[in-house]
Amino acid sequence: MRVSEQRQWDRLMQMARLGAIQGEGVNRAALSDLDHQARRLLLSWALPLGLAPSVDALGNLFLRHEGTDPGLPAVLAGSHMDSQPKGGRFDGIWGVLAALEAVQAIREAGLATRRAIEIVAWTNEEGGRFAPGCMGSMAFSGFRPPGSWDEVKDRDGLRFGAELARLLAAEADIPRRPLGFTPYAYVEPHIEQGPLLEAEGLDIGIVTGIQGSRWFLVEIAGKTDHAGTAPLALRQDAVQDMVRAIAALNALTADPQDVLRFTVGRVEVFPNSSNTVADLARFSIDLRHPDAAVLTARGDAVVATIQGAMARCRATVTETFNALPARFAPLVQEAIAAAAQAEGLQARPMPSGAFHDAQFLVPVCPTGMIFIPSRAGISHHPAEYSSPAQTARGAQVLARVLLDLAGRA
Amino acid sequence: MRVSEQRQWDRLMQMARLGAIQGEGVNRAALSDLDHQARRLLLSWALPLGLAPSVDALGNLFLRHEGTDPGLPAVLAGSHMDSQPKGGRFDGIWGVLAALEAVQAIREAGLATRRAIEIVAWTNEEGGRFAPGCMGSMAFSGFRPPGSWDEVKDRDGLRFGAELARLLAAEADIPRRPLGFTPYAYVEPHIEQGPLLEAEGLDIGIVTGIQGSRWFLVEIAGKTDHAGTAPLALRQDAVQDMVRAIAALNALTADPQDVLRFTVGRVEVFPNSSNTVADLARFSIDLRHPDAAVLTARGDAVVATIQGAMARCRATVTETFNALPARFAPLVQEAIAAAAQAEGLQARPMPSGAFHDAQFLVPVCPTGMIFIPSRAGISHHPAEYSSPAQTARGAQVLARVLLDLAGRA
Repeated sequence: MRVSEQRQWDRLMQMARLGAIQGEGVNRAALSDLDHQARRLLLSWALPLGLAPSVDALGNLFLRHEGTDPGLPAVLAGSHMDSQPKGGRFDGIWGVLAALEAVQAIREAGLATRRAIEIVAWTNEEGGRFAPGCMGSMAFSGFRPPGSWDEVKDRDGLRFGAELARLLAAEADIPRRPLGFTPYAYVEPHIEQGPLLEAEGLDIGIVTGIQGSRWFLVEIAGKTDHAGTAPLALRQDAVQDMVRAIAALNALTADPQDVLRFTVGRVEVFPNSSNTVADLARFSIDLRHPDAAVLTARGDAVVATIQGAMARCRATVTETFNALPARFAPLVQEAIAAAAQAEGLQARPMPSGAFHDAQFLVPVCPTGMIFIPSRAGISHHPAEYSSPAQTARGAQVLARVLLDLAGRA
Repeated sequence: MRVSEQRQWDRLMQMARLGAIQGEGVNRAALSDLDHQARRLLLSWALPLGLAPSVDALGNLFLRHEGTDPGLPAVLAGSHMDSQPKGGRFDGIWGVLAALEAVQAIREAGLATRRAIEIVAWTNEEGGRFAPGCMGSMAFSGFRPPGSWDEVKDRDGLRFGAELARLLAAEADIPRRPLGFTPYAYVEPHIEQGPLLEAEGLDIGIVTGIQGSRWFLVEIAGKTDHAGTAPLALRQDAVQDMVRAIAALNALTADPQDVLRFTVGRVEVFPNSSNTVADLARFSIDLRHPDAAVLTARGDAVVATIQGAMARCRATVTETFNALPARFAPLVQEAIAAAAQAEGLQARPMPSGAFHDAQFLVPVCPTGMIFIPSRAGISHHPAEYSSPAQTARGAQVLARVLLDLAGRA
């Protein structure tokens, strides 16, 4: 049983054309027309193999390789197909294509599996268009009710609920399945998005868990004024209080060990005119730490820190996402380690700095992830790169893991 | 000779419908379709009066009341018709309609004037869509060559040059005139945009001059990174260096007297995704002071201050506008004072905190401005308000000033 390096690479490059941006990047937002096209392209490869497609109420797309004992819980493997606005060609999409490549290799080798294997493409992992990310896996796992995000709007004012309905209408030809089930195990292949594997010359990361994440959206309301006439002492300048808030958050999140991750990645100001004092500033907070106690303590202080920083405006802080650190199952970690060894590949256990859909599967079933190297650790950027050989090694390990897990009683 | 309070107010309210936004505000961007419509509406009132229209290469629109000695330089009066993105119903447009009302009153009274009176509507005073502001008056006065801003883009990527060409094509039925001439005098009626006249219970401000303004556009270039994986010590986070730059500028521009005006009103961040470290942050600086020495010293330190604040990113600073403080002509100030006195109105000399097209006429001809009260000093905001009586008193004073100046040898 061998995966095809060339076939998988060709598929990656075909997918990369859907939303291609300058510098070999990809901008393929969740539920966009490009996302629809990517799903159709995936189906164009999966259906001729005999895989059975289905879609659930969140738009999560499944492709089923049947087992010899269809009554047993299936093994689930996959990732997501949406990208960051200025993202790369591998984050997410490689995990879906690796699962397809692994299943195809198993079928081409004429190997029957006891359990079914289902390939999954989760809806909106990135959260770049509709925040937060991981909506598909959160709804699948029961972490949030499926209608939770219907009113979330993108920057054009389009609602998540309406865009999801548009997708489901366009995919009315695909059988609908109930939301959620209990897989035998879940395995997510993904690029590392960090520099460790490359730096140590390794092929495979056996992921031990994921640090926790808390996201906040902050709105600071002031008052517009004429930039030439209003004395500074009388202003309610939303930009100035935003600057004060970010400086205070920098102090709150300071970490000499540089383990805590604090990011303000999104900033919007209104009316956004150079000679008008802004009456509204909006910014995002992304806070992450592998230790639940640290994440809870610092995260719980965010609101008071921002309120304390307000000089003249009013701040509203909404927590949009809260995922505590997750630990992956020994069952899956051991299967990955055994597969890498059998393939003669160099592997090591490692934590994940990024969050992933896998995080939300942890309470549902034994869950794990396979990492492959990211060149220079670059991700969420057009320069994101993993080589044809690296992606093939990852798919080969996955194929062995799936064969192993799907063969168990 | 009496202006009509009702007629002028009706026209103001009709204009306010073109770009009406919530809270009685107006969003009528320069060279937009709404701007075209406003100009047509103005013409629909001016042409039946017998005023002769013409337009120059910058789209500045003129309406000529002929004098008995057409060879003498005309008196020029007017303002602008574009608004801030979240602006009010009076800033700019009242000055144009007051000039129309004044000329109409003169004509209806059967009074001939020795000199012609030209009403002007300057193109793009606000700079909210295409920065900087005052392009029409700057080109008219020779302060900048007429093609200077052709490549300036709005947020949709539309070029100023292309949008100007679109306006001129749409107004091909209006006679074209050469750019610039030397008026006998220029008078600009405008709302105060500050609280002084209302607080003191006065009717008319005799404007003595305008504080200087310097505008800068700052671009901070960093590197995108994954918000969950990239250690803070290795990031080039454009948002963080922007926050440092604004804090450093606050220190540079600190003024215990609260005379200096420093505003960051426009902020944009890219790719603007909550879980991606930003690789580009762009912000505007608006710096004003009535003392040329102070404005020069602080303004000249802006670049070094920003560069000194950069921790890990590269900053590019472009000065987009530089207008030193302007002093208005005694000729015009005296004519306004005499007119207010003759009307039995309460007037006082005062400086202007906002900049205006009048600033650029100062080197060209004797220039002045008439202010009327702004309720609570509010401007660049939907709540901007001057009453029917206040706008009528301003137009009445203007009519007397124009009659006076246009009657001189």
